[in-house]
Amino acid sequence: MNKVAVIMGSNSDMPVMQDAIDILKEFKIEIEVDIVSAHRTPEKLFDFSKNAHKRGIKVIIAGAGGAAHLPGMVASLSPLPIIGVPVKSSNSIDGWDSVLSILQMPGGVPVATVALNGAKNAGILATQIIGASDPAVLDQVIAYKEGLKLKVEQAAKDIK
Amino acid sequence: MNKVAVIMGSNSDMPVMQDAIDILKEFKIEIEVDIVSAHRTPEKLFDFSKNAHKRGIKVIIAGAGGAAHLPGMVASLSPLPIIGVPVKSSNSIDGWDSVLSILQMPGGVPVATVALNGAKNAGILATQIIGASDPAVLDQVIAYKEGLKLKVEQAAKDIK
Amino acid sequence: MNKVAVIMGSNSDMPVMQDAIDILKEFKIEIEVDIVSAHRTPEKLFDFSKNAHKRGIKVIIAGAGGAAHLPGMVASLSPLPIIGVPVKSSNSIDGWDSVLSILQMPGGVPVATVALNGAKNAGILATQIIGASDPAVLDQVIAYKEGLKLKVEQAAKDIK
Amino acid sequence: MNKVAVIMGSNSDMPVMQDAIDILKEFKIEIEVDIVSAHRTPEKLFDFSKNAHKRGIKVIIAGAGGAAHLPGMVASLSPLPIIGVPVKSSNSIDGWDSVLSILQMPGGVPVATVALNGAKNAGILATQIIGASDPAVLDQVIAYKEGLKLKVEQAAKDIK
Amino acid sequence: MNKVAVIMGSNSDMPVMQDAIDILKEFKIEIEVDIVSAHRTPEKLFDFSKNAHKRGIKVIIAGAGGAAHLPGMVASLSPLPIIGVPVKSSNSIDGWDSVLSILQMPGGVPVATVALNGAKNAGILATQIIGASDPAVLDQVIAYKEGLKLKVEQAAKDIK
Amino acid sequence: MNKVAVIMGSNSDMPVMQDAIDILKEFKIEIEVDIVSAHRTPEKLFDFSKNAHKRGIKVIIAGAGGAAHLPGMVASLSPLPIIGVPVKSSNSIDGWDSVLSILQMPGGVPVATVALNGAKNAGILATQIIGASDPAVLDQVIAYKEGLKLKVEQAAKDIK
Amino acid sequence: MNKVAVIMGSNSDMPVMQDAIDILKEFKIEIEVDIVSAHRTPEKLFDFSKNAHKRGIKVIIAGAGGAAHLPGMVASLSPLPIIGVPVKSSNSIDGWDSVLSILQMPGGVPVATVALNGAKNAGILATQIIGASDPAVLDQVIAYKEGLKLKVEQAAKDIK
Amino acid sequence: MNKVAVIMGSNSDMPVMQDAIDILKEFKIEIEVDIVSAHRTPEKLFDFSKNAHKRGIKVIIAGAGGAAHLPGMVASLSPLPIIGVPVKSSNSIDGWDSVLSILQMPGGVPVATVALNGAKNAGILATQIIGASDPAVLDQVIAYKEGLKLKVEQAAKDIK
Repeated sequence: MNKVAVIMGSNSDMPVMQDAIDILKEFKIEIEVDIVSAHRTPEKLFDFSKNAHKRGIKVIIAGAGGAAHLPGMVASLSPLPIIGVPVKSSNSIDGWDSVLSILQMPGGVPVATVALNGAKNAGILATQIIGASDPAVLDQVIAYKEGLKLKVEQAAKDIK
Repeated sequence: MNKVAVIMGSNSDMPVMQDAIDILKEFKIEIEVDIVSAHRTPEKLFDFSKNAHKRGIKVIIAGAGGAAHLPGMVASLSPLPIIGVPVKSSNSIDGWDSVLSILQMPGGVPVATVALNGAKNAGILATQIIGASDPAVLDQVIAYKEGLKLKVEQAAKDIK
Repeated sequence: MNKVAVIMGSNSDMPVMQDAIDILKEFKIEIEVDIVSAHRTPEKLFDFSKNAHKRGIKVIIAGAGGAAHLPGMVASLSPLPIIGVPVKSSNSIDGWDSVLSILQMPGGVPVATVALNGAKNAGILATQIIGASDPAVLDQVIAYKEGLKLKVEQAAKDIK
Repeated sequence: MNKVAVIMGSNSDMPVMQDAIDILKEFKIEIEVDIVSAHRTPEKLFDFSKNAHKRGIKVIIAGAGGAAHLPGMVASLSPLPIIGVPVKSSNSIDGWDSVLSILQMPGGVPVATVALNGAKNAGILATQIIGASDPAVLDQVIAYKEGLKLKVEQAAKDIK
Repeated sequence: MNKVAVIMGSNSDMPVMQDAIDILKEFKIEIEVDIVSAHRTPEKLFDFSKNAHKRGIKVIIAGAGGAAHLPGMVASLSPLPIIGVPVKSSNSIDGWDSVLSILQMPGGVPVATVALNGAKNAGILATQIIGASDPAVLDQVIAYKEGLKLKVEQAAKDIK
Repeated sequence: MNKVAVIMGSNSDMPVMQDAIDILKEFKIEIEVDIVSAHRTPEKLFDFSKNAHKRGIKVIIAGAGGAAHLPGMVASLSPLPIIGVPVKSSNSIDGWDSVLSILQMPGGVPVATVALNGAKNAGILATQIIGASDPAVLDQVIAYKEGLKLKVEQAAKDIK
Repeated sequence: MNKVAVIMGSNSDMPVMQDAIDILKEFKIEIEVDIVSAHRTPEKLFDFSKNAHKRGIKVIIAGAGGAAHLPGMVASLSPLPIIGVPVKSSNSIDGWDSVLSILQMPGGVPVATVALNGAKNAGILATQIIGASDPAVLDQVIAYKEGLKLKVEQAAKDIK
Repeated sequence: MNKVAVIMGSNSDMPVMQDAIDILKEFKIEIEVDIVSAHRTPEKLFDFSKNAHKRGIKVIIAGAGGAAHLPGMVASLSPLPIIGVPVKSSNSIDGWDSVLSILQMPGGVPVATVALNGAKNAGILATQIIGASDPAVLDQVIAYKEGLKLKVEQAAKDIK
C-alpha cells in the first residue's frame, strides 16, 4: 500500500493544501487528510506522528503558516520523510516566517521543504518518494513529466 | 515562591542563555535550568511543559536557534507566560530564522519574544512579570532601572 | 485588582488593537484604553508610564506602527511588564519596521513582543502574566486552551 | 539496492557536502559522489540526470551555492526525488540566493530543500526516503532518533 | 542581420515580456519569440541554446519567475550575451526569488540582469548591444534617449 | 553662533560617532557631545531635547543602534532639525533594526537619516544645514566638495 | 527669502510629493516645483543642482523611486542640504530599492533621507532647517508640534 | 577596434574590479581603466560618458558600492551597453544597497547587472557583447566555456 497523509495546522490552510490532494488523486495515491495543530492540539500531533508509519503511511505532507512548527514537530516524532509546505497566511510577513520556520531545521531532523504555497509540488514529491521504490509509480512520474513538456510545446505553438 | 525555568534547545545555546541565568540570580529569583529539545526530546518537552506550573514555576524562558520551535511548543502546552529568546546559531540566516520562528505565533498561543540573543532581557522580563504581583520584586526592578541611569550618567561624565 | 492598560500610538491602530480589548473582556480582565503617542504627546507618555503601576495596572499593552517607539519608551519609564504589538501601518515596509523597532530593545529594557498585528495574543499574554500569580486566572487560561483544541477537533471532523 | 547520489556544482562545495556523505556512510547506504556543474558541464548534467534512475539510484542529493540551478535542473530531468542543499558560497548574499534558487521551484518540478548548509539533514532525509519502503532502514532511522534523544539527555545531565 | 530572441519559461510570463517585444519592434530589430522552459522542456532548452548563434541570433533575452533557471541555463549553453528578466510571478516571495536566481550567477557564466519585470529595458539593452558594433543602431539609441528627455521636459512644463 | 550637538545612546557608539565630531571640527563648527539614552535616561532625554534650541544649538545629531529610539524621541521633543545615525551594534540584525527604527518616522516628526554608521555624513549635513543660512559656511561646503574631487582625480592618476 | 525646491524624477511621483508641497504651503514657505530626471534629463540635473543655491533656494527636496539616483546626484552637485524622499514606485521591490539607493550615500555626500513615501516629513524637515536660523519659522514649528499634540488628545477623548 | 572601459567609483573598489581587467586581458580585449566618481567628480562623469562611444569604446563596465549611482548615471549619458558591478563595500548593508541601486533602473535606461562582486563575469559579458558581432571573439568565448568544462571534469576526477 502507498498511502500519503496530508495534514495542515488550520482549516484556513485548505485552499492551498487542496493542490496536494488533487495531484495525489491524479496519481491514484491513497490519501488521508486531517487537521493537526502543533499549537492547539499538541496531543493529537503526538499520537498522529508516533503512529503514522505503523498504519502504512509512507510520506507525510504538512502545511502551516506563520511560525509554522507543524512540519518540524511531526519530523521530530516520526521516522517517515516529512514534506513541509510553507503557507502564506494572512498576517504572515510576506511568507518569510513560514518559509524559515519550516526550512531551517537543526541537524538530525530534516523537513523536505517546497516553495511557498507549493502544495502541488509536495504531492508530486510524495509520489516521487514512493516511486523511488515502486517502478509502476516511477513510470507515472515519467509520464507526468512528459505531459508537462507537451503542454509547454503547445503553448509555444499558440504564441506563434 | 517565585521560580523561573530557563530552558534551551541545545547546550550550544548556553553561552547566550547564561545572561538570563546571571540576571535572574542578581534579582535573587529562584531558577531551574534544563536542556529540552523540541526536535530531539519531544516527550521531555511534553512532560516539562504540562507540569511546570504545577510545581511552582511562574515563568518559562526558552531559547533556541534556527527553525526555533521550542518556545512556541512550550507555549502550546503550558498555561504560563513563555518568554522566547531567538539565538543566532551557526548556520542561521543572519538570525532571521530564529526571530520569525519564535515571534510569528498564531492567534491563541503567544510567545513573549525578546531581541536576538537577548537572554538578559528575558531574565529582566521574567522578573517584571513576577513583580507585577509582588511589590518587593517590583521595587527591585525600579532600583535596577535607577542603576542603569547612573551608569549612563557616569559614562556621560567620562566622555567630557 | 487585575488591570491591564491597552494603549496605542494613533487611533488608526484601533482596528488592530481591538483584538486585545476583546480577548481581555472575554477573560473578564479590567482594562483601560488610551491613545498615547511617543512622538506627538511625549509628556503624556511620561506621565502615563511613570504612574501606571501606582494605580494598580499590572501589565501594559502598547501597539504602534512604522518606527514604533511607544512600547520601548513605555518600557524605559515603567517597571511593569510591557507587551509590544507591531502594527502594519499604511506606509510600513511590509511590517519589518514596526517589528524591529519593538523587538530589538537594548539590554536592560525588555519589551515582550508578539507577532505583527498580534493584538489578540498580546491580550492572552497579559492574562497569562496575571495568571502566573493568580490561580483563578491561570485556570481560565487552561480552559481557554482547551477551547482552542475543541475548535480544531471540530474543524478536523468537518473536513472528513 | 539502496543507492544515493551526492553531487555538487563545484569542489568548493565539498566541505559542506561531506556531511551528507558521512551520515549516509553511518547508515550504510551505498553512495556515489560526483561534481556536476549545471553551468559549466550542462551535457554531463543531462547524462547524469537522465540515467541515474536506470542504474539503481533512488535519491539524488544536489548541493550548490549562489544562483544554484543544479538541484532544480536535475529535478527537471530525473523522475527521482531530488534533495537540494543550499550552500553559502563566498560571494553569496548571506545565503538567500542559494536558498531561494533551490526552494522556489515552479509547479510540476519539486526539489526537497533542506536548511542552508544542511547537508547532514539531506543525508538523513535520503535515508528516510529509502526507509519509507524498506523496514530495515526505517528501523535504523528510529534508532538514530533515539540516539539523538540520549545525547540531549546526557547534555541536560552535564549542565546540572 | 541583427536578430534578437525573446524567450520565456511560461506563457504566463508573456504580459511582462511583451514590453521587450514592443520596444524591439520600435527599434526595427528582427525578433524571434518562443517559450522554452528550463524545467519542463530541458531538451528544447539545449537545442535552442546550442544553436541560436549559428542561425544569426546576436542576443538572447530570457524571462522567468520564481526559481528562475532559464536565463542562467541558456547562458551555460550559448556563447551569446544573455539578458535575464526577473518576472514577479504569482507565488513569488516579492520577486526576490527571481531576482537572485538570475543575478547571482557563478564566475564564468554571466547573465546581464535587468530590473524586476524590466522587459522593456531588456529590449533596449539588446539594441544597445547591437549598436555597439552597428553605427546606425547606435544612432537610433541616441535618438531614443533624446526622446526620453523631451517627454520629461514636456511633463515638467505641464506641472507648471 | 553655530552650535551642533552630537549625542549618542551609549558610549559603545563613540567609535562610530567620532567621525561626526571630527568632520565638524574640520569645519570649525562649535560642538557639544553627550550621552543621552532614550531607554535608560529618559528624563535627561526630555531636558536635553526641550531646551537645546534655547541655548543656541541649531542641529542635533543623534546616533543609536538596535531598536534605536533616540533620534525619533529627540525629534518629538525638539523643534530643531534632527539628524539620525543608525549604528550597527553588536547584536543588531545586520543593521536593519537601527536603520528602520530611525528612518520610518510617522508623519509630523521627521528625522534626517543618513547611511548605516554614516556619522561623517551626519556632520557634513549639519554643516550644510547651517550653511543654508550662513554664506561663509556654505563656501566651506563648496570648498570641501572641491577637495573631494581633487582626491578622486589624484587617485585616478595613481592607478594609471 | 526662504525658498525650498521640490523636485521629482517623474510626474508619476507627484501623488506622493504633493504632501511636501502642501505642508510647505501651510508653513508659508516659498516653493519651486520641477521634474528633473537623473536618468532622462541629466543636463537639466546639472544645471538645476549647480545653480539652485545661487538663486536663493535654501533646501532641495528630491523624490524618486526604484534605483533612485536623483537625490544623491543633486547632493553631489549642490552645496545645499538635500532631503531625499524614497517613493514606492510600481515595479519597486517593496520600496527597498528606493530606500537603499537614497540612504546609503558614501562618505562626503549626505542625503537627509525620510521614510518611504514620507514627503510630508520632507516638507517639515525643510521648514525645520530654515527654522534653525530663523526664529519666526522655528516658532511655527513649535506651534505645529503643539497642534499635533492637540489632535492626539482629541482622538484619545473620542475613544473614551 | 574592440575597446572596453573599466571604471569604478573609488580606488577602494579596485580589488574587486581587478577581476574584470584580468579576464579582459586574457581575452586580449583592449581596455581603459579609470576612477570616475558619480558623487565626487560629476563633471568627469559627464565628459567620460558623453564621449566614450566617440573614441571607439564599445562597452563600459562600471563598479560601485553602497548607494551605487555610477553605472546608472553613465547609462543615462551614454548610448553604449553599460555593465554594472555591485561592490560590497565596508559599510554596505550586506550588499543589498549596491545590488538594488544598480539593478532597479527605470524604464528607458538599462544597466546590465552582474552578481555582487562579479567583476569577472562583467569582463566575460563585455567580451560576449563584442563577440555578438565579431566571430573571432565569439570563438574565444566558445573556447573559454570549453575550458570551464575541462576544469570541472578534472575536479570530478580528483575527488574520485
